[in-house]
Amino acid sequence: MANAEQIALDAKLSFDASQLVDSHERHKALVALKDALTTAKADILAANARDIEDAKVQVAAGKMSSTLLKRLDLQSSKSKYDDMLQGILDVDSLPDPTGQVTYARQLDDDLELHRVTCPIGVLLVIFEARPEVIVNITALAIKSGNAAILKGGKESLHTQAAMTTVIQGALSTTALPRAYIQTVSSRSEIASLLSQDRYIDLVIPRGSNSLVRSIQNDSRIPVMGHADGLCAVFVDESAVEKKAINVVVDSKTTYPSACNAAETLLVHEALLSTLWPTLAASLLSAGITLRCDPPTLSALTSSPSTSSHAAFASLVSPSSPEDYDTEFLELTLAVKAVPSCADAIAHINAHSSHHTDCIVTESDDNARAFSRGIDSAGVYVNASTRFADGFRYGFGTEVGVSTGKTHARGPVGLEGLVIYKYQVRSRAAEGHATAVFGTGEGQRPFLHTPLPLGDAPF
Amino acid sequence: MANAEQIALDAKLSFDASQLVDSHERHKALVALKDALTTAKADILAANARDIEDAKVQVAAGKMSSTLLKRLDLQSSKSKYDDMLQGILDVDSLPDPTGQVTYARQLDDDLELHRVTCPIGVLLVIFEARPEVIVNITALAIKSGNAAILKGGKESLHTQAAMTTVIQGALSTTALPRAYIQTVSSRSEIASLLSQDRYIDLVIPRGSNSLVRSIQNDSRIPVMGHADGLCAVFVDESAVEKKAINVVVDSKTTYPSACNAAETLLVHEALLSTLWPTLAASLLSAGITLRCDPPTLSALTSSPSTSSHAAFASLVSPSSPEDYDTEFLELTLAVKAVPSCADAIAHINAHSSHHTDCIVTESDDNARAFSRGIDSAGVYVNASTRFADGFRYGFGTEVGVSTGKTHARGPVGLEGLVIYKYQVRSRAAEGHATAVFGTGEGQRPFLHTPLPLGDAPF
Repeated sequence: MANAEQIALDAKLSFDASQLVDSHERHKALVALKDALTTAKADILAANARDIEDAKVQVAAGKMSSTLLKRLDLQSSKSKYDDMLQGILDVDSLPDPTGQVTYARQLDDDLELHRVTCPIGVLLVIFEARPEVIVNITALAIKSGNAAILKGGKESLHTQAAMTTVIQGALSTTALPRAYIQTVSSRSEIASLLSQDRYIDLVIPRGSNSLVRSIQNDSRIPVMGHADGLCAVFVDESAVEKKAINVVVDSKTTYPSACNAAETLLVHEALLSTLWPTLAASLLSAGITLRCDPPTLSALTSSPSTSSHAAFASLVSPSSPEDYDTEFLELTLAVKAVPSCADAIAHINAHSSHHTDCIVTESDDNARAFSRGIDSAGVYVNASTRFADGFRYGFGTEVGVSTGKTHARGPVGLEGLVIYKYQVRSRAAEGHATAVFGTGEGQRPFLHTPLPLGDAPF
Repeated sequence: MANAEQIALDAKLSFDASQLVDSHERHKALVALKDALTTAKADILAANARDIEDAKVQVAAGKMSSTLLKRLDLQSSKSKYDDMLQGILDVDSLPDPTGQVTYARQLDDDLELHRVTCPIGVLLVIFEARPEVIVNITALAIKSGNAAILKGGKESLHTQAAMTTVIQGALSTTALPRAYIQTVSSRSEIASLLSQDRYIDLVIPRGSNSLVRSIQNDSRIPVMGHADGLCAVFVDESAVEKKAINVVVDSKTTYPSACNAAETLLVHEALLSTLWPTLAASLLSAGITLRCDPPTLSALTSSPSTSSHAAFASLVSPSSPEDYDTEFLELTLAVKAVPSCADAIAHINAHSSHHTDCIVTESDDNARAFSRGIDSAGVYVNASTRFADGFRYGFGTEVGVSTGKTHARGPVGLEGLVIYKYQVRSRAAEGHATAVFGTGEGQRPFLHTPLPLGDAPF
């Protein structure tokens, strides 16, 4: 196998070459990809069966989790493979994120400026067991015009090899270079790839928190992703009980291991003997462990509706300070009383992972203060944190979720895979020099007249 | 002085607090800043005089360049101080980059999603001697709603201290926190500040290449800036002589030490005995040193119009391979012949710093190939690379120039200092949970109806 620098350089050269390929050729490549994967279904599933055999041995030996084995599996679910193929067509049907003019000015007679969206360049996508991610990312890369290097887990070695053969075979029948999509599987390649900042423009880690954090720490290349999803719900003084129950239970229970699930519940202290015990009883009935600070705990102990709850003894316990910085990823909530909306905002800004946080309130003033004051990608009023998702936002697809503060934030759709370039074109007989512009004698000012955003010049 | 972590934390808390401050208060803060600096003009110029005294001693001792001394000087030019004050009003008059809705969808009855632009958070701006940058960045930070930590050079110690007193005094009369703008001057603070990625969201280095490169290498915090400005002009086979001369001479001579000045000239080999000697004669007459590869050199030697030029012997010499990777920042051009537009594109993609590159051509096909194929922030047709500038693009101000491929690229205006957050609000009586959406029985689909982009909900 070529070394990391060669892989990165090949990707960069493929990207450069692909810039001259028209976008309808990218559509044709997506169709070719789908057709090739349809034809190769039996081969890929056979390769996947080998990975599953190997994985079962690892699971039996206690060296692999059964969750990982399940993620690896492309065949137990009847529709998984076909859903993967449909995903290619879904991506194909989305609007082209490139070639959009987002700023245009007439600078002078016969001198035009257009800012045009374009691909970022070379993506390095690092993920764990799920082999369908290979196809998903390949489709997104082709659609957005970016070359990609995909690094999957060693657990899916055979599936990945079979898919790569099919993907590169399909690419070789298109206008895109064969090395436009490359896959690597050895874990030792990661560190060398992360140092290829000359050729790789963006790293997208999709996997465990520790994987993401180690990449964020190790690479000079910009990273788009999230290490943590520590979301909070604040139940404000004015909250209505049924809304609070509806929003908190949904935020916590619908998919506890998702990054947009709630981990912390803040309760206004005015509600400790009223709404809080009722809400807590609903949470206990939903099987949620509550780790409470002294005020919220004592309120539950002294309320008959909770202290007599069958699950009280097993699910309610005092919290420790670390609980408010913990992403539980299971049916556990850290609970804390706060004296005001301002204190809730301060707590969340200090402890949340800036992913998605929610206020349950009837007060417009507090809804506004929370929405403006919380420094997170998602600021929600009376809605479950679980809405934070690219599909739910209407993006059609999701590249990932970013808790960064630059480039793209929150759920990221195809827009997150593009940047822009400035195209300046002179049509004057002598071309355009800058020396003639200015306030001096014989010099002229810039026009800066807005131009229509419609079509990119090239 | 507080340590770096305390400075960064104070900035973060100031930013969080400022999120609840209305944007018209930011306007009032800019006016207060301008008034305070007007009143304190004599004090600040007196402090600046002390810095200049100290600097003159350093220059005399050969420990400082006279260029640095000149940059430090706020008083020799009559209008410099007043221009700085006018700059505050100019920034104030620009459109508010925050609070803009860039995506909005009705997700369900009574459930709305708005993507609203907002400040990034805490900026760390590192610059060298020019003290007016303090005021310029302060104005940009206030306008865009970002808190800022400013690290100037030790040469402007007294000026910076006097300005800081005035700026913080002005802030204390406004709704913004006093620590919203902080300045630090000790060089030893840089490394500690660059490690405060928990509190600082973006580093903007404005200074020498080595400063910028060392920051890009040392920090986990995203960096917006450019280490190099290695721009190229390609004179294509179809180029018209007067355009080529106009564009190349302007690109090279109007400000040779600027990042948007041309450093490399590529000449189509079909022009070696025709356009090239005429262009070279113009370049020699403009005092430009030409470092030529063998074909371009031998063409000049064999052409009477250049070989007989008075400056030929002193200004024309063979190039070395490193010349094509060198940002000369003076009146020197590296010149190379290329056999095709495709070769010019490949050379530029391999050697340029992805800042701004230009083709001089009469061919629409080659203009298109160049504009699409060059992976740079600016791709120009028949126009000088020196147009690459925020003011010239019509941004009203320039935060810097980015050669990065994410977030912001090319000349960066106020838009580069904002990101966005997603505001989701339910107005339904029971709030909104995700569990009711889906394709199962009794579940409903998302609407995803576009909403007007006008007003942010909060």
